[in-house]
Amino acid sequence: MSDSAWQKLGHYLRETQLLGSIHSALYWDQNTAMPPNGAAWRGDQLSFLAKSLHERQSNQVFEELLCEAQEEFKYDCCNEKIGQKEIVQKQRNLDLLYEQLNRQKKLDPALISELASAQTNGYALWQQAKLSSDFQIFAPALKKLIALRREQARQLNEPRSCWETLAQPFEPDLTIERLNQLFNPLRKRLPELISEYSILNEFKNQKWDLNEHAQNELCSRLLDEWGRDSKITSLAKSPHPFSITLGPQDFRLTTRVVRGQPLSCFLATAHEWGHSLYEQGLPSQSHQWFAWPLGQATSMALHESQSLFWENRVARSKAFSDRFWRFFAEQGAPFTCSDDLWRAMNPLTPGLNRVEADELSYGLHILVRTQLEIDFLENELDVNDIPNEWNKRYKELLGVTPENDSEGCLQDVHWSEGAFGYFPSYLIGHLISAQLAESMAHDLNKFGIEGEDPIGTCIAKCSESELLRWLREEVHHFGRQLNADQLVEKVTKRRLSSSAFLKYLEKKLEQLTN
Amino acid sequence: MSDSAWQKLGHYLRETQLLGSIHSALYWDQNTAMPPNGAAWRGDQLSFLAKSLHERQSNQVFEELLCEAQEEFKYDCCNEKIGQKEIVQKQRNLDLLYEQLNRQKKLDPALISELASAQTNGYALWQQAKLSSDFQIFAPALKKLIALRREQARQLNEPRSCWETLAQPFEPDLTIERLNQLFNPLRKRLPELISEYSILNEFKNQKWDLNEHAQNELCSRLLDEWGRDSKITSLAKSPHPFSITLGPQDFRLTTRVVRGQPLSCFLATAHEWGHSLYEQGLPSQSHQWFAWPLGQATSMALHESQSLFWENRVARSKAFSDRFWRFFAEQGAPFTCSDDLWRAMNPLTPGLNRVEADELSYGLHILVRTQLEIDFLENELDVNDIPNEWNKRYKELLGVTPENDSEGCLQDVHWSEGAFGYFPSYLIGHLISAQLAESMAHDLNKFGIEGEDPIGTCIAKCSESELLRWLREEVHHFGRQLNADQLVEKVTKRRLSSSAFLKYLEKKLEQLTN
Repeated sequence: MSDSAWQKLGHYLRETQLLGSIHSALYWDQNTAMPPNGAAWRGDQLSFLAKSLHERQSNQVFEELLCEAQEEFKYDCCNEKIGQKEIVQKQRNLDLLYEQLNRQKKLDPALISELASAQTNGYALWQQAKLSSDFQIFAPALKKLIALRREQARQLNEPRSCWETLAQPFEPDLTIERLNQLFNPLRKRLPELISEYSILNEFKNQKWDLNEHAQNELCSRLLDEWGRDSKITSLAKSPHPFSITLGPQDFRLTTRVVRGQPLSCFLATAHEWGHSLYEQGLPSQSHQWFAWPLGQATSMALHESQSLFWENRVARSKAFSDRFWRFFAEQGAPFTCSDDLWRAMNPLTPGLNRVEADELSYGLHILVRTQLEIDFLENELDVNDIPNEWNKRYKELLGVTPENDSEGCLQDVHWSEGAFGYFPSYLIGHLISAQLAESMAHDLNKFGIEGEDPIGTCIAKCSESELLRWLREEVHHFGRQLNADQLVEKVTKRRLSSSAFLKYLEKKLEQLTN
Repeated sequence: MSDSAWQKLGHYLRETQLLGSIHSALYWDQNTAMPPNGAAWRGDQLSFLAKSLHERQSNQVFEELLCEAQEEFKYDCCNEKIGQKEIVQKQRNLDLLYEQLNRQKKLDPALISELASAQTNGYALWQQAKLSSDFQIFAPALKKLIALRREQARQLNEPRSCWETLAQPFEPDLTIERLNQLFNPLRKRLPELISEYSILNEFKNQKWDLNEHAQNELCSRLLDEWGRDSKITSLAKSPHPFSITLGPQDFRLTTRVVRGQPLSCFLATAHEWGHSLYEQGLPSQSHQWFAWPLGQATSMALHESQSLFWENRVARSKAFSDRFWRFFAEQGAPFTCSDDLWRAMNPLTPGLNRVEADELSYGLHILVRTQLEIDFLENELDVNDIPNEWNKRYKELLGVTPENDSEGCLQDVHWSEGAFGYFPSYLIGHLISAQLAESMAHDLNKFGIEGEDPIGTCIAKCSESELLRWLREEVHHFGRQLNADQLVEKVTKRRLSSSAFLKYLEKKLEQLTN
């Protein structure tokens, strides 16, 4: 029997997945093993693959396969050859594939190539500007990127604002209105919490460190206790930690050792492992939706919720410190009790840097960036005013002021590549993580793990596998069947909001100041 | 001005090189970082790339570009637009490209796909057979591979014998007649040398070892003293050491630590570094022949001559031991003088294993394999008789007999993938290395480095850079302008033979028995 149109489309998608995963493998190597001068050729390899990928995702062959699969699907539906569940899932796959194809087709190839060089140029000038702490070096490149992204949104011609259109690849279906619903309570409450609890932590300013070997040992123990399977995972070092999937049984993560920040490597490992666990829980190679949209991660915020769960909710919990502080002490950390590690893990005072921010102030970093993006894309904020606006808003929300642009509006790489609309995902991830954790706790209670904090009970018993099982069953396997909002509502039986996150934060602050 | 046909062909070749180097990057990752279960998907990625590469190298587009470049070249020649040197080089490029295109075109795609699955199957059965030390498990797969390779040679229809046709990709222009000229003196003289000098080495049977850290330190010192530039090179561990080029400024090598063989890691590093130095010395990215045939390594034997030069001629020399024995002693080796390291480096007694063989017996391992290949491809040697023939010939030439097939005819991977015609390159590499070294010594004398052993003098003075400079200027940069035979003749002013190698060996044996 010859392949159905649906199967043919499946084969094509599998090859696209192969090609995409080759791109990922080169990216991994670039950041973990490549000697510095290999960069130029690697750039050419990656462009070549990106061009091939774009071609595959927008060519006539793909469009025809998609069309034929849709015709076949319609026929099968009319003739009642497939059940309701399959109809819904296949329709969703087709919708997402058409959406992607149409986006690729609507864009003028000249714009794509202009964007690529503007990104390269933007990244180079941003690096220079950051080094000299001078935003004006970067400003012209940023203006160009904004103009090109506006043009991109115009060509895509979606029933959305410019910023919303650009945010879609990261956070499907997100609107500014929804963003305000989610973020406005945080804009009000987080600064209040900061001034209510001005915690001084003895370990925060105390200078101590761990050598690289000690940090490696602690990370290794963490991953082993969290169920790492070394047949399908590997860990390496890179300048910026990341997690990446190179194949259905090939999950990589990286961490880094930062001198003077003895917990950075450990927490980055916990964070990236959370990302990896989500990917490991997506439909596997034997699943019918592997390589289809329904087999992919649904949004960056959902992804971030998974990394933040393991980093903040587990590794930064008191129960975890109870278990791990001795291992830290054995490796040379100046801890004499669990509280020492716990407080070191949770400094909870605002600073200038997003990446180093704790759970309390992290959201404010995002609020500043998100509003600035919307303002320069949609509300005519002049690019030259960004440094002043940045500093003003930091003062207002976090009560701190950068000494220079490098510490301020030049600290993140995102805008240098014209990646607008990405930042909110980080914060929405905090909200999702907190709301999912409430439901998880509720379910754990039902399953007989008692007490007010059943997640902490699992951590204390070294039973993080219980937490993972819940995430696997309730969250991971959906892929893109549901967008992030829909998924959260399905799992938690209520719409995503900031309340679970704020409740969690308030409780933690209370405990830390006890 | 629009691109010339020659430039268009150049762009196409550069993209082919990009794609090929992506394949290499995946291979590197597979052997250095990939978790074991990533293998299946990686195999699919590599097949996908191999298919794309084959398509690029045999399609209509390529053929037309080649045709147009040749027409343009002919026109330029007739109109005397280019000089003699350029004519010769361009003609050679075109010849090699046409040769490659014709080979790809002559092969039936069905055969290519049959070969691919026979190789996968052969490799799997060879592994099983080796594990159970039972050649009969592997025999049917080998028969199949032989039949397919015979068919391949028939389809290629070159004016050469079957074995010769299969050896071409490794050793262009090699014939069996030439092979006999080179190898017959070795077949006679090596067994004589073995019985004349039955050296017993106190360190060979003495059990000692170095820990992994010590071995890493020694390798690192070696590469630093040999001029490693870490901006363009990186070193990792893999089950089998190899050297691979991932880009014009991206050279990787691997080594391995073998328990109980404390010199294995060090000598593998020296060997692979020699391969890498050759690649580093080929026409660079700015050179007009980069990505053209003239920018590639000319043969596996020439490649091997470069690795063997650094491994045997330099690292295994007395002068090198004088310099390095203290570092080995510092790392825990039981050496009290230079002679101890030197003798440990040069056991010079025959064993059963090719990879562990020393300079004296290595050639005999190759003679056995090469003649067996020719016999089962061309002289009707029955596959079932291979184990007996193997053991018989080992007894005759090396005076040793394997206890089982695993130690005997199943020890090498090559035949499991149907790679026939590869083995001689290893031994020809020894001959080339020795003959080039004679010319190098002669030239060093001319440049004022005096004495009977100016290479040793350079090594003693930590001036290996002098040796490298000579290789760069006299050997590396030619690429495929000349085949291996032609290159050796050009550099040494005489035809390649076994005499320099035998002379070198005899001298070393004399010194070692003093």
